[in-house]
Amino acid sequence: MPTMISDKDNYRYIDINADIGEGYGAYRIGDDAELMKHITSANIACGFHAGDPGTIAATVKLALGHEVALGAHPGLPDLQGFGRRAMAISPREAYELTIYQIGAVQAFAAAEGARLSHVKPHGALYNMAAKDAAVAEAIAEAIYKVDGNMMLYGLSGSELIRAAERIGLRAANEVFADRAYEEDGSLTPRHVAGAVLSDAAAAAARMVGLVKGGQLLTRQGSLVRLQADTVCVHGDSPDALRHAAELSEALRAGGVMPRRADHRA
Amino acid sequence: MPTMISDKDNYRYIDINADIGEGYGAYRIGDDAELMKHITSANIACGFHAGDPGTIAATVKLALGHEVALGAHPGLPDLQGFGRRAMAISPREAYELTIYQIGAVQAFAAAEGARLSHVKPHGALYNMAAKDAAVAEAIAEAIYKVDGNMMLYGLSGSELIRAAERIGLRAANEVFADRAYEEDGSLTPRHVAGAVLSDAAAAAARMVGLVKGGQLLTRQGSLVRLQADTVCVHGDSPDALRHAAELSEALRAGGVMPRRADHRA
Amino acid sequence: MPTMISDKDNYRYIDINADIGEGYGAYRIGDDAELMKHITSANIACGFHAGDPGTIAATVKLALGHEVALGAHPGLPDLQGFGRRAMAISPREAYELTIYQIGAVQAFAAAEGARLSHVKPHGALYNMAAKDAAVAEAIAEAIYKVDGNMMLYGLSGSELIRAAERIGLRAANEVFADRAYEEDGSLTPRHVAGAVLSDAAAAAARMVGLVKGGQLLTRQGSLVRLQADTVCVHGDSPDALRHAAELSEALRAGGVMPRRADHRA
Amino acid sequence: MPTMISDKDNYRYIDINADIGEGYGAYRIGDDAELMKHITSANIACGFHAGDPGTIAATVKLALGHEVALGAHPGLPDLQGFGRRAMAISPREAYELTIYQIGAVQAFAAAEGARLSHVKPHGALYNMAAKDAAVAEAIAEAIYKVDGNMMLYGLSGSELIRAAERIGLRAANEVFADRAYEEDGSLTPRHVAGAVLSDAAAAAARMVGLVKGGQLLTRQGSLVRLQADTVCVHGDSPDALRHAAELSEALRAGGVMPRRADHRA
Repeated sequence: MPTMISDKDNYRYIDINADIGEGYGAYRIGDDAELMKHITSANIACGFHAGDPGTIAATVKLALGHEVALGAHPGLPDLQGFGRRAMAISPREAYELTIYQIGAVQAFAAAEGARLSHVKPHGALYNMAAKDAAVAEAIAEAIYKVDGNMMLYGLSGSELIRAAERIGLRAANEVFADRAYEEDGSLTPRHVAGAVLSDAAAAAARMVGLVKGGQLLTRQGSLVRLQADTVCVHGDSPDALRHAAELSEALRAGGVMPRRADHRA
Repeated sequence: MPTMISDKDNYRYIDINADIGEGYGAYRIGDDAELMKHITSANIACGFHAGDPGTIAATVKLALGHEVALGAHPGLPDLQGFGRRAMAISPREAYELTIYQIGAVQAFAAAEGARLSHVKPHGALYNMAAKDAAVAEAIAEAIYKVDGNMMLYGLSGSELIRAAERIGLRAANEVFADRAYEEDGSLTPRHVAGAVLSDAAAAAARMVGLVKGGQLLTRQGSLVRLQADTVCVHGDSPDALRHAAELSEALRAGGVMPRRADHRA
Repeated sequence: MPTMISDKDNYRYIDINADIGEGYGAYRIGDDAELMKHITSANIACGFHAGDPGTIAATVKLALGHEVALGAHPGLPDLQGFGRRAMAISPREAYELTIYQIGAVQAFAAAEGARLSHVKPHGALYNMAAKDAAVAEAIAEAIYKVDGNMMLYGLSGSELIRAAERIGLRAANEVFADRAYEEDGSLTPRHVAGAVLSDAAAAAARMVGLVKGGQLLTRQGSLVRLQADTVCVHGDSPDALRHAAELSEALRAGGVMPRRADHRA
Repeated sequence: MPTMISDKDNYRYIDINADIGEGYGAYRIGDDAELMKHITSANIACGFHAGDPGTIAATVKLALGHEVALGAHPGLPDLQGFGRRAMAISPREAYELTIYQIGAVQAFAAAEGARLSHVKPHGALYNMAAKDAAVAEAIAEAIYKVDGNMMLYGLSGSELIRAAERIGLRAANEVFADRAYEEDGSLTPRHVAGAVLSDAAAAAARMVGLVKGGQLLTRQGSLVRLQADTVCVHGDSPDALRHAAELSEALRAGGVMPRRADHRA
């Protein structure tokens, strides 16, 4: 039986995750040191869409210094496109590239006496896996076979979550503070007006309501039930950093404590 | 105290290792399935000088099917040059790229319920580490920190071996059946006449003598003491495959049994 | 007005093209030196799906030695997948990666005092451009802007050919000797039984008929009109090489002379 | 006979060059748009140490908009190390990677109806070629064979300059405004105290003196003759941008007009 993290005590807690270590060699994206202060879980780029050995090494140490949970953030082999361009990979290829990338980051964790707590696919791989059950299952199986104690982060209610449940992996349903949702619980596509919420305070208040009540106001004005185990924030701009800080503060003020998703692990 | 594998019972055994899984995507080098029949340890390319997730996955399964010991074979980040061109990397970079690559292969082993038994640096990284104590120590430390039970394969008597001993890692002194040696125990440089032995039978007989007697006839005609824990063979041509088969057979005929270097692990 | 190469004198000639120089660093695919004997145009891999500077340099010289027309063979940035996996690139990205790759090969031609005569997209890029008018036009525009004298090779009757015509570029309609065709002139998908013709002699005879009569027997048994300016052969296996040689011979025997598509350039 | 740009009218002019377009995919380094205002020649990264097709396309357009001379800035195939790590490449490999990279950028220039005016090797390749006559000559030959009208930018008085003269290529002797020089005209190594000048105004005044008088005060206090055809500035930090602006202004104030090195081309 899948062990979801949706037990009844969970309504007052939520994990805050962010993509971290997305530089490469001489390149840097975002202020990771600052972002670490506002999150509980770090998804560390593994070298395919971003991240190189030196960046991963530094990022693992940075996260450990902040007691932030370590996660692998595997992406498509597309550094030029930052892993954002869908590719026609087979489930077998999804399985293999996930294993490779988990292993690379896991070894840096081991070198510091630590373990990975989760895996969150990146960009186009995340989106493909949210809809394609075969790709989702390949990713879940890869995680399970490397270390069945790791959690799989995926879009709330998506194929990734279902695949984790089938495989026997703990899943964390991910929600986005700054994105509108449709009546079926899916994200409003970015090209639709109002898809991205610009009011950080309103977005944060909405998250408090979701964590406490389990429901979210959709773009259409109705309420939709949505599992929210972890909320994603960004740190790639001064604005994004500020929003992350505000969300973290608003959650606490609203009685929702940020807490690592693997708190029982 | 370092635990070398040179105990007195060892004189009748030797490990036979080969570089394996050195294809990339659609590319293949050598006949790995055939070579597996003649070796006891496989050094699996990790993705930097050769090897991609699909190739590593297939190679790990192939090696396990032959009960051949799994090793990581990390190289410089130079696919275009097959890791054969020296690069001015720092010890820190050597440490980081070794950790990354070990981890990548280790995860495929874990997915099959297996473990890596050793690490052997590839090409220019191997040669740099044989002479440069700081690079050698960085590699040894990387291995030790990821999993101190793994062995380090390095040129017999080189800085890599010394680094392993300092760090507290088991080392396997590697010798080459088809290469001439100088009076100081170093390999005769390839550009010197007679550096590569073309007579496979003579080369094999020489290995039998070395394993049993601990000494080798140098190019100059003198005898040199040389520690021989593992002998390297190649499979990248029909000739190389034939030599590997002949060596394996000659060793057995001479009373030297091929055996994994980690037989006591 | 587009200048097609389908003038009335052309019925007795056809260009034979092949993908060439698809190695990378230490890797080789196919016997290029042998294949060069049987073709009139070479599509040289440019470094994204295959090919590196050394391979391109050697391939350009090899083609010039055989008086084979030089072409660039740009692919998606996917060395791991050999450019065979579709990627969600924008028309702008298609434009940019085509310019980059043409330029790289063009410089090697210039260094030898030669020029490129054509461009043929590779693998998934070829297939995407055959159906997607925007990607096709981006590729055609890239070629036109770099050198409007180059020809564009594309699937006969596809969007690539139409894009060339719109842009004002000469196009070469490509046909495949060993593939079945549907009634609408499209290739029979590979997963359909009978999609690939195994009888080399029959395939060659069919090509003679097509070049002379402009029509081809479809899988359904009907005749379809098909423009055939160039026929593609392969050299990645001993069988493929033999088929290429047989096709070249059968064409000559049937009164169809192999001739570079740029014979009037 | 080599045509140097050191004619007697040149004493009141100097070219100001900068490395430009050194981003990759989603990554950016420096504020190229701002830096373009202060330079006369742009060295555009070609894809090996930095730069991808999209970045090159944008950079070529940006430079043309500022009437800045276009140059190729080829580097070693080491994106992870930003081309700053020396690699043991052969002269042949230097020749081939230079041709490839020139061609890639040249095609974007051609697509905009422009031409490349020069080539400046990057980082470790620049340093290797400054001292190694064979590598320098390979690079010079590559440029000459692709387009003998291009200039070669190299360290003033170095092997690169001599190689250009032997090959029959115009050379631009490069000097650095912010670096100390030794009595033999070489750059003071960075690890020596005082190697980098922090006083931008003093550095600029020194350049004015050098361009007008042909001599420079060395670290030891003596004067050394130094050919100065082009001066290198940086734009990878707000400080660097400010220094570039100050240098440009100080040169004008001192009667030295910034002017493209290819003004007579």
